[in-house]
Amino acid sequence: MRRALELARRGAGRVSPNPMVGCVIARGGRVIGEGWHETCGGPHAERNALAACTEDPAGATLYVTLEPCCHWGRTPPCTDAILERGIARVVVGCTDPNPLVDGKGVRLLREAGVEVETGVLEQECWRLNEVFFHFIQHRTPFVVYKYAMTLDGKTASASGDSRWVSGEAARCRVHEVRGQLSAIMVGVDTVLADDPLLTCRIPGGRDPLRIVCDSRARTPLDSRLIQSAGEIPTIIAAVGWNERAAALKKAGAQILLCGERDGRVDLRELMRQLGARGVDSILLEGGTTLAFAALEAGIVRKVQAYIAPKLLGGSTARTPAGGQGLARMADAWRLTGLTAEPVGEDFLLEGYLPCSQDL
Amino acid sequence: MRRALELARRGAGRVSPNPMVGCVIARGGRVIGEGWHETCGGPHAERNALAACTEDPAGATLYVTLEPCCHWGRTPPCTDAILERGIARVVVGCTDPNPLVDGKGVRLLREAGVEVETGVLEQECWRLNEVFFHFIQHRTPFVVYKYAMTLDGKTASASGDSRWVSGEAARCRVHEVRGQLSAIMVGVDTVLADDPLLTCRIPGGRDPLRIVCDSRARTPLDSRLIQSAGEIPTIIAAVGWNERAAALKKAGAQILLCGERDGRVDLRELMRQLGARGVDSILLEGGTTLAFAALEAGIVRKVQAYIAPKLLGGSTARTPAGGQGLARMADAWRLTGLTAEPVGEDFLLEGYLPCSQDL
Ligand SMILES: [Zn+2]
Ligand SMILES: [Zn+2]
Repeated sequence: MRRALELARRGAGRVSPNPMVGCVIARGGRVIGEGWHETCGGPHAERNALAACTEDPAGATLYVTLEPCCHWGRTPPCTDAILERGIARVVVGCTDPNPLVDGKGVRLLREAGVEVETGVLEQECWRLNEVFFHFIQHRTPFVVYKYAMTLDGKTASASGDSRWVSGEAARCRVHEVRGQLSAIMVGVDTVLADDPLLTCRIPGGRDPLRIVCDSRARTPLDSRLIQSAGEIPTIIAAVGWNERAAALKKAGAQILLCGERDGRVDLRELMRQLGARGVDSILLEGGTTLAFAALEAGIVRKVQAYIAPKLLGGSTARTPAGGQGLARMADAWRLTGLTAEPVGEDFLLEGYLPCSQDL
Repeated sequence: MRRALELARRGAGRVSPNPMVGCVIARGGRVIGEGWHETCGGPHAERNALAACTEDPAGATLYVTLEPCCHWGRTPPCTDAILERGIARVVVGCTDPNPLVDGKGVRLLREAGVEVETGVLEQECWRLNEVFFHFIQHRTPFVVYKYAMTLDGKTASASGDSRWVSGEAARCRVHEVRGQLSAIMVGVDTVLADDPLLTCRIPGGRDPLRIVCDSRARTPLDSRLIQSAGEIPTIIAAVGWNERAAALKKAGAQILLCGERDGRVDLRELMRQLGARGVDSILLEGGTTLAFAALEAGIVRKVQAYIAPKLLGGSTARTPAGGQGLARMADAWRLTGLTAEPVGEDFLLEGYLPCSQDL
């Protein structure tokens, strides 16, 4: 399955909006065929692996990162091919949450007498396509909340200085992630304080859609975001129309009107609206108040915390999630699957929050 | 050398105040002798390894985690034994900062025609005896600043709730560390807020000396610390004598008077006084103000941050190091050798601060 995961990753950036899938066919510990989903619309990983077999795969074991499909899409069902070629055993990484599959592929194979094992390296297989799986199930964006802080939990000094928390390698990684997700979102306070451009500064990288949560449409017309709104799509999410919103629209921004909640943009409604427009993923980057509101609204699915090997001190210095905060430690939002990975001089800690089904 | 490190660790808790040392003798990739420093006053690792050789070690390579001694201590110099047995090559983990050795062992072997390589797995070899090496060089305690925070940098909620930040495994690990270091230090604010007992709750564990930084001797007589001061040594570090200090002394605490600095106990002087009393290591546990003062005073050598997979929010919630804080991110104290290790559900991030030579 590790090998199948490696193969699957070769489809990165070429199969969207399809998931990345890898497949290995083996007999007695010997690999006899490999394949992956190479391009959107092209044959699935299972068919590529079957076609690449160096001997008759009858009776062999097929390892696949994602449950084989059993429906007609742009290509015929993979379950048919697996049965036709006489595969005896199928090992599946994770089941396909696509409502057209969702366990039916596994069931169909079992009913046809194939031995099927599921959930092998399930977490890795799921993470490989986490945005896709989330979006196909919920139709709202997969929100990644990202921040950088010192080892003593500060995102800026007591006097507001935040250049730079992370090292070169971590800042570079953030630009990579910006290029991989559909959109980037900040609060208007961040625009007013930092005047960010929010582009992907990797050569050849794709700029994400830029979204500002700005209930009263206070984003300045001379901000770098609005100045570049002609070239890079920019959405101002506001709660009502006003003169400033009209001026921003004239300057090239899109105005997206949402309901109000606690005096701010209703984030759940915003996610539904963005999902309906096909925005499948958002990097939530700035604003401690917005971050807390997003956590409260239950829209955050993944957290990426870059931790710098620095201590700053300051009882009034800024920390990642602000707002009112939860009163009890026992009520804190709990992350699952926390991992730590060195990125240059910093550490990236990543974890997941449970998905609110009912945005 | 990895094997020598493993062997060295077998001396843990039995060789103090000597360092832990491990030694492997090999010829052509084949181990012919192993040894470690087993008990304080007993033979050194090198002699144990030479005695354990299954064949004549003449011409072989000796791997040792610490530079061999060249002076008469409780045992004769190891360099003599190495030369007598005709060892051709010596590979050293780290040099011995003990002023009686400090490179002389390596020099003596080289002058006698032995090939010597130094600095192999140097960091691991140094960390194995970090308290010992620090204390023998500086005669002030090796201070470990420890805290637990959420992934968004909070040590307590905005309303002050901090039970518990870390999981069971991390809290257990803290008690182990308490049992390994000589002393534990908190600020009086922590005593007033939490009334901690500061003991090692591991069965059979040794309680550390307890130190309260308490310039005005405000520690309550009915605190758990003072109530137990008859059984567990407890030091109140204050800046002047007063009635409360006298009462605390009568209740069983030791009063240690220090100079004043910025209205608080002069921490550098306190470290010199504690060092003179033979306190070689301190776990700095509580008080965000004390933590910042300790960082400013340059007395912290190692940082242990337990990070819980939780998000709490709160712009006024407590964070690890408080005080005034540094104004510029670029001036932040930089840690070296940062590592991340899972401890139960949490991650432990550890790093080092440069040593102020002139406390
Ligand atoms: Zn398929
Ligand atoms: Zn020796």
